Amino acid sequence: MNPSEHDLKFMAEAREQARLGLEERGVPVGSVLVLGDKVIAHGRNRRVQGGDPIAHGEMDCIRAAGRQRSYRQMTIYTTLSPCMMCAGTIVQFGIPRVVIGENETFGGNEDFLRARGVDVVVLGDPGCKALMDEFQRRYPDVWNEDIGVD
Amino acid sequence: MNPSEHDLKFMAEAREQARLGLEERGVPVGSVLVLGDKVIAHGRNRRVQGGDPIAHGEMDCIRAAGRQRSYRQMTIYTTLSPCMMCAGTIVQFGIPRVVIGENETFGGNEDFLRARGVDVVVLGDPGCKALMDEFQRRYPDVWNEDIGVD
Repeated sequence: MNPSEHDLKFMAEAREQARLGLEERGVPVGSVLVLGDKVIAHGRNRRVQGGDPIAHGEMDCIRAAGRQRSYRQMTIYTTLSPCMMCAGTIVQFGIPRVVIGENETFGGNEDFLRARGVDVVVLGDPGCKALMDEFQRRYPDVWNEDIGVD
Repeated sequence: MNPSEHDLKFMAEAREQARLGLEERGVPVGSVLVLGDKVIAHGRNRRVQGGDPIAHGEMDCIRAAGRQRSYRQMTIYTTLSPCMMCAGTIVQFGIPRVVIGENETFGGNEDFLRARGVDVVVLGDPGCKALMDEFQRRYPDVWNEDIGVD
Protein backbone atom coordinates (compact mmCIF):
# COMPACT_ATOMS: atom_id res chain seq x y z
CA MET A 1 0.00 0.00 0.00
CA ASN A 2 1.29 3.48 -0.80
CA PRO A 3 2.04 5.94 1.98
CA SER A 4 -0.78 8.29 2.92
CA GLU A 5 -0.50 11.86 4.19
CA HIS A 6 -0.93 10.35 7.64
CA ASP A 7 2.09 8.17 7.00
CA LEU A 8 4.26 11.15 6.11
CA LYS A 9 3.07 13.05 9.18
CA PHE A 10 3.78 10.18 11.55
CA MET A 11 7.15 9.50 9.92
CA ALA A 12 8.03 13.14 10.60
CA GLU A 13 7.26 12.48 14.27
CA ALA A 14 9.45 9.37 14.23
CA ARG A 15 12.25 11.38 12.57
CA GLU A 16 11.99 14.00 15.30
CA GLN A 17 12.49 11.20 17.86
CA ALA A 18 15.58 10.09 15.94
CA ARG A 19 16.91 13.67 15.91
CA LEU A 20 16.44 13.93 19.68
CA GLY A 21 18.37 10.66 20.00
CA LEU A 22 21.30 12.03 18.02
CA GLU A 23 21.31 15.14 20.24
CA GLU A 24 21.68 12.77 23.20
CA ARG A 25 24.57 11.03 21.38
CA GLY A 26 22.37 7.98 20.93
CA VAL A 27 21.56 5.86 17.88
CA PRO A 28 19.18 8.07 15.84
CA VAL A 29 16.29 5.71 15.25
CA GLY A 30 12.81 6.89 16.16
CA SER A 31 9.46 5.15 16.23
CA VAL A 32 5.77 5.92 16.64
CA LEU A 33 2.93 3.49 17.34
CA VAL A 34 -0.38 4.64 15.89
CA LEU A 35 -4.01 3.55 16.06
CA GLY A 36 -6.09 5.24 13.36
CA ASP A 37 -4.94 8.86 13.59
CA LYS A 38 -4.06 8.66 17.28
CA VAL A 39 -0.49 8.29 18.51
CA ILE A 40 -0.32 5.58 21.17
CA ALA A 41 3.38 6.08 21.96
CA HIS A 42 6.64 7.58 20.77
CA GLY A 43 10.02 5.93 21.25
CA ARG A 44 13.65 6.11 20.22
CA ASN A 45 16.75 3.99 20.49
CA ARG A 46 18.12 4.39 24.03
CA ARG A 47 20.93 1.83 24.01
CA VAL A 48 23.50 4.50 24.79
CA GLN A 49 21.34 6.78 26.92
CA GLY A 50 19.97 3.97 29.11
CA GLY A 51 22.74 1.39 28.80
CA ASP A 52 19.97 -0.87 27.54
CA PRO A 53 20.84 -3.20 24.67
CA ILE A 54 17.22 -4.07 23.84
CA ALA A 55 16.06 -0.43 23.66
CA HIS A 56 15.92 -0.14 19.89
CA GLY A 57 13.48 2.50 18.66
CA GLU A 58 10.57 0.14 18.04
CA MET A 59 11.10 -1.67 21.36
CA ASP A 60 11.25 1.59 23.30
CA CYS A 61 8.04 2.69 21.59
CA ILE A 62 6.17 -0.57 22.27
CA ARG A 63 7.37 -0.49 25.86
CA ALA A 64 6.21 3.12 26.25
CA ALA A 65 2.76 2.11 24.99
CA GLY A 66 2.41 -0.17 28.01
CA ARG A 67 0.20 -3.23 28.05
CA GLN A 68 -2.25 -3.19 25.14
CA ARG A 69 -5.10 -5.59 24.68
CA SER A 70 -4.55 -5.77 20.91
CA TYR A 71 -2.26 -4.30 18.25
CA ARG A 72 -4.27 -5.59 15.31
CA GLN A 73 -5.47 -2.18 14.13
CA MET A 74 -2.14 -0.42 14.70
CA THR A 75 0.71 0.78 12.48
CA ILE A 76 4.28 1.12 13.70
CA TYR A 77 6.54 3.76 12.13
CA THR A 78 10.29 3.40 12.32
CA THR A 79 12.93 5.61 10.74
CA LEU A 80 15.17 2.58 10.06
CA SER A 81 14.27 -0.91 8.85
CA PRO A 82 13.65 -3.29 11.78
CA CYS A 83 16.41 -5.62 12.94
CA MET A 84 15.57 -9.26 13.67
CA MET A 85 14.67 -8.44 17.29
CA CYS A 86 12.25 -5.71 16.28
CA ALA A 87 10.86 -7.69 13.33
CA GLY A 88 10.24 -10.67 15.62
CA THR A 89 8.51 -8.38 18.10
CA ILE A 90 6.23 -6.89 15.44
CA VAL A 91 5.18 -10.41 14.41
CA GLN A 92 4.78 -11.61 17.99
CA PHE A 93 2.56 -8.68 18.96
CA GLY A 94 0.50 -8.98 15.80
CA ILE A 95 1.17 -5.46 14.50
CA PRO A 96 -0.15 -5.71 10.94
CA ARG A 97 1.59 -2.75 9.26
CA VAL A 98 5.09 -1.26 9.38
CA VAL A 99 6.12 1.99 7.70
CA ILE A 100 9.92 2.24 7.34
CA GLY A 101 11.76 5.51 6.80
CA GLU A 102 14.74 3.96 5.02
CA ASN A 103 16.36 0.56 4.56
CA GLU A 104 19.66 1.54 2.94
CA THR A 105 21.64 1.91 6.16
CA PHE A 106 20.28 -1.36 7.50
CA GLY A 107 17.68 -3.76 6.19
CA GLY A 108 16.93 -7.28 5.17
CA ASN A 109 14.03 -8.31 7.37
CA GLU A 110 11.31 -6.91 5.12
CA ASP A 111 10.75 -10.34 3.52
CA PHE A 112 10.54 -12.04 6.90
CA LEU A 113 7.83 -9.56 7.89
CA ARG A 114 5.93 -9.94 4.62
CA ALA A 115 6.10 -13.74 4.86
CA ARG A 116 4.39 -13.44 8.24
CA GLY A 117 1.60 -11.32 6.80
CA VAL A 118 2.85 -7.87 7.76
CA ASP A 119 2.20 -5.01 5.32
CA VAL A 120 5.57 -3.28 4.82
CA VAL A 121 5.95 0.19 3.29
CA VAL A 122 9.42 1.68 2.69
CA LEU A 123 9.43 5.46 2.19
CA GLY A 124 13.08 6.00 1.20
CA ASP A 125 13.19 9.15 3.32
CA PRO A 126 16.45 11.11 2.86
CA GLY A 127 16.06 12.84 6.24
CA CYS A 128 16.06 9.50 8.10
CA LYS A 129 19.14 8.39 6.16
CA ALA A 130 21.01 11.66 6.79
CA LEU A 131 20.67 11.17 10.55
CA MET A 132 22.13 7.66 10.34
CA ASP A 133 24.96 8.83 8.06
CA GLU A 134 25.94 11.47 10.58
CA PHE A 135 25.75 8.97 13.45
CA GLN A 136 27.88 6.35 11.71
CA ARG A 137 30.50 8.99 10.94
CA ARG A 138 30.61 10.14 14.55
CA TYR A 139 30.25 6.83 16.43
CA PRO A 140 31.05 3.78 14.26
CA ASP A 141 31.73 1.50 17.27
CA VAL A 142 28.33 2.10 18.85
CA TRP A 143 26.63 1.43 15.55
CA ASN A 144 28.36 -1.93 15.12
CA GLU A 145 27.41 -2.88 18.68
CA ASP A 146 23.80 -1.95 18.05
CA ILE A 147 23.47 -4.29 15.08
CA GLY A 148 25.31 -7.15 16.75
CA VAL A 149 28.56 -6.91 14.73
CA ASP A 150 31.59 -7.85 16.84
CA MET B 1 24.00 -31.37 22.01
CA ASN B 2 22.86 -33.04 25.20
CA PRO B 3 22.47 -31.05 28.41
CA SER B 4 25.48 -30.96 30.69
CA GLU B 5 25.48 -30.79 34.50
CA HIS B 6 26.08 -27.06 34.00
CA ASP B 7 22.90 -26.88 31.96
CA LEU B 8 20.85 -28.48 34.70
CA LYS B 9 22.36 -26.16 37.30
CA PHE B 10 21.66 -23.01 35.28
CA MET B 11 18.14 -24.19 34.41
CA ALA B 12 17.52 -24.56 38.16
CA GLU B 13 18.51 -20.89 38.50
CA ALA B 14 16.16 -19.90 35.68
CA ARG B 15 13.37 -21.92 37.33
CA GLU B 16 13.97 -20.10 40.61
CA GLN B 17 13.50 -16.81 38.69
CA ALA B 18 10.23 -18.17 37.31
CA ARG B 19 9.11 -19.16 40.81
CA LEU B 20 9.84 -15.65 42.09
CA GLY B 21 7.78 -14.29 39.19
CA LEU B 22 4.79 -16.42 40.16
CA GLU B 23 5.10 -15.19 43.76
CA GLU B 24 4.83 -11.65 42.35
CA ARG B 25 1.71 -12.74 40.38
CA GLY B 26 3.72 -12.41 37.18
CA VAL B 27 4.19 -14.76 34.24
CA PRO B 28 6.51 -17.47 35.60
CA VAL B 29 9.24 -17.53 32.97
CA GLY B 30 12.83 -17.19 34.11
CA SER B 31 16.07 -16.80 32.22
CA VAL B 32 19.82 -16.84 32.80
CA LEU B 33 22.57 -15.60 30.47
CA VAL B 34 25.83 -17.51 30.92
CA LEU B 35 29.39 -17.20 29.66
CA GLY B 36 31.36 -20.40 30.36
CA ASP B 37 30.43 -21.17 33.97
CA LYS B 38 29.80 -17.54 34.89
CA VAL B 39 26.32 -16.05 35.14
CA ILE B 40 26.19 -12.71 33.31
CA ALA B 41 22.61 -11.91 34.29
CA HIS B 42 19.34 -13.30 35.61
CA GLY B 43 15.92 -12.20 34.42
CA ARG B 44 12.26 -13.02 34.57
CA ASN B 45 9.07 -12.01 32.84
CA ARG B 46 7.97 -8.65 34.33
CA ARG B 47 5.03 -7.78 32.07
CA VAL B 48 2.68 -7.66 35.03
CA GLN B 49 5.10 -6.38 37.67
CA GLY B 50 6.48 -3.56 35.51
CA GLY B 51 3.55 -2.97 33.14
CA ASP B 52 6.10 -3.69 30.42
CA PRO B 53 4.89 -5.71 27.42
CA ILE B 54 8.40 -6.46 26.11
CA ALA B 55 9.74 -7.73 29.45
CA HIS B 56 9.61 -11.43 28.67
CA GLY B 57 12.11 -13.49 30.67
CA GLU B 58 14.84 -13.56 28.03
CA MET B 59 14.45 -9.84 27.26
CA ASP B 60 14.61 -8.90 30.94
CA CYS B 61 17.75 -11.03 31.28
CA ILE B 62 19.50 -9.55 28.22
CA ARG B 63 18.56 -6.06 29.40
CA ALA B 64 19.93 -6.80 32.87
CA ALA B 65 23.23 -7.90 31.31
CA GLY B 66 23.67 -4.37 29.96
CA ARG B 67 25.71 -3.58 26.88
CA GLN B 68 27.93 -6.50 25.91
CA ARG B 69 30.61 -6.41 23.26
CA SER B 70 29.79 -9.93 22.08
CA TYR B 71 27.40 -12.76 22.89
CA ARG B 72 29.10 -15.32 20.70
CA GLN B 73 30.39 -17.50 23.53
CA MET B 74 27.22 -17.30 25.61
CA THR B 75 24.28 -19.60 26.34
CA ILE B 76 20.83 -18.33 27.27
CA TYR B 77 18.61 -20.47 29.50
CA THR B 78 14.87 -19.99 29.50
CA THR B 79 12.26 -22.00 31.35
CA LEU B 80 9.80 -21.65 28.42
CA SER B 81 10.44 -21.86 24.68
CA PRO B 82 11.12 -18.41 23.18
CA CYS B 83 8.34 -16.48 21.48
CA MET B 84 9.03 -14.77 18.14
CA MET B 85 10.24 -11.58 19.88
CA CYS B 86 12.71 -13.47 22.04
CA ALA B 87 13.78 -15.81 19.22
CA GLY B 88 14.41 -12.81 16.97
CA THR B 89 16.43 -11.17 19.73
CA ILE B 90 18.59 -14.28 20.24
CA VAL B 91 19.36 -14.30 16.50
CA GLN B 92 19.96 -10.54 16.34
CA PHE B 93 22.39 -10.58 19.25
CA GLY B 94 24.21 -13.64 17.94
CA ILE B 95 23.63 -15.85 20.98
CA PRO B 96 24.67 -19.27 19.64
CA ARG B 97 22.98 -21.61 22.12
CA VAL B 98 19.59 -21.75 23.84
CA VAL B 99 18.62 -24.23 26.53
CA ILE B 100 14.83 -24.44 26.95
CA GLY B 101 13.12 -25.79 30.06
CA GLU B 102 9.94 -26.88 28.30
CA ASN B 103 8.10 -26.27 25.03
CA GLU B 104 4.77 -27.95 25.76
CA THR B 105 3.03 -24.85 27.16
CA PHE B 106 4.33 -22.70 24.29
CA GLY B 107 6.70 -23.38 21.44
CA GLY B 108 7.17 -23.42 17.73
CA ASN B 109 10.17 -21.17 17.16
CA GLU B 110 12.79 -23.88 17.66
CA ASP B 111 13.04 -24.46 13.89
CA PHE B 112 13.40 -20.73 13.21
CA LEU B 113 16.31 -20.64 15.67
CA ARG B 114 17.94 -23.76 14.24
CA ALA B 115 17.59 -22.44 10.68
CA ARG B 116 19.55 -19.38 11.80
CA GLY B 117 22.34 -21.53 13.23
CA VAL B 118 21.35 -21.52 16.90
CA ASP B 119 21.97 -24.71 18.89
CA VAL B 120 18.67 -25.50 20.66
CA VAL B 121 18.36 -27.94 23.56
CA VAL B 122 14.95 -28.76 25.07
CA LEU B 123 15.11 -30.31 28.54
CA GLY B 124 11.43 -31.21 29.05
CA ASP B 125 11.65 -30.07 32.67
CA PRO B 126 8.47 -30.92 34.64
CA GLY B 127 9.21 -28.20 37.22
CA CYS B 128 9.15 -25.46 34.56
CA LYS B 129 5.87 -26.84 33.18
CA ALA B 130 4.24 -27.07 36.62
CA LEU B 131 4.83 -23.35 37.19
CA MET B 132 3.17 -22.48 33.86
CA ASP B 133 0.26 -24.83 34.54
CA GLU B 134 -0.39 -23.12 37.85
CA PHE B 135 -0.13 -19.68 36.25
CA GLN B 136 -2.53 -20.48 33.41
CA ARG B 137 -5.04 -21.84 35.90
CA ARG B 138 -4.84 -18.71 38.02
CA TYR B 139 -4.52 -15.96 35.35
CA PRO B 140 -5.64 -17.15 31.90
CA ASP B 141 -6.21 -13.57 30.61
CA VAL B 142 -2.69 -12.42 31.40
CA TRP B 143 -1.25 -15.47 29.70
CA ASN B 144 -3.20 -14.80 26.49
CA GLU B 145 -2.06 -11.18 26.52
CA ASP B 146 1.55 -12.26 26.97
CA ILE B 147 1.53 -14.44 23.87
CA GLY B 148 -0.36 -11.92 21.74
CA VAL B 149 -3.70 -13.74 21.63
CA ASP B 150 -6.63 -11.31 21.55
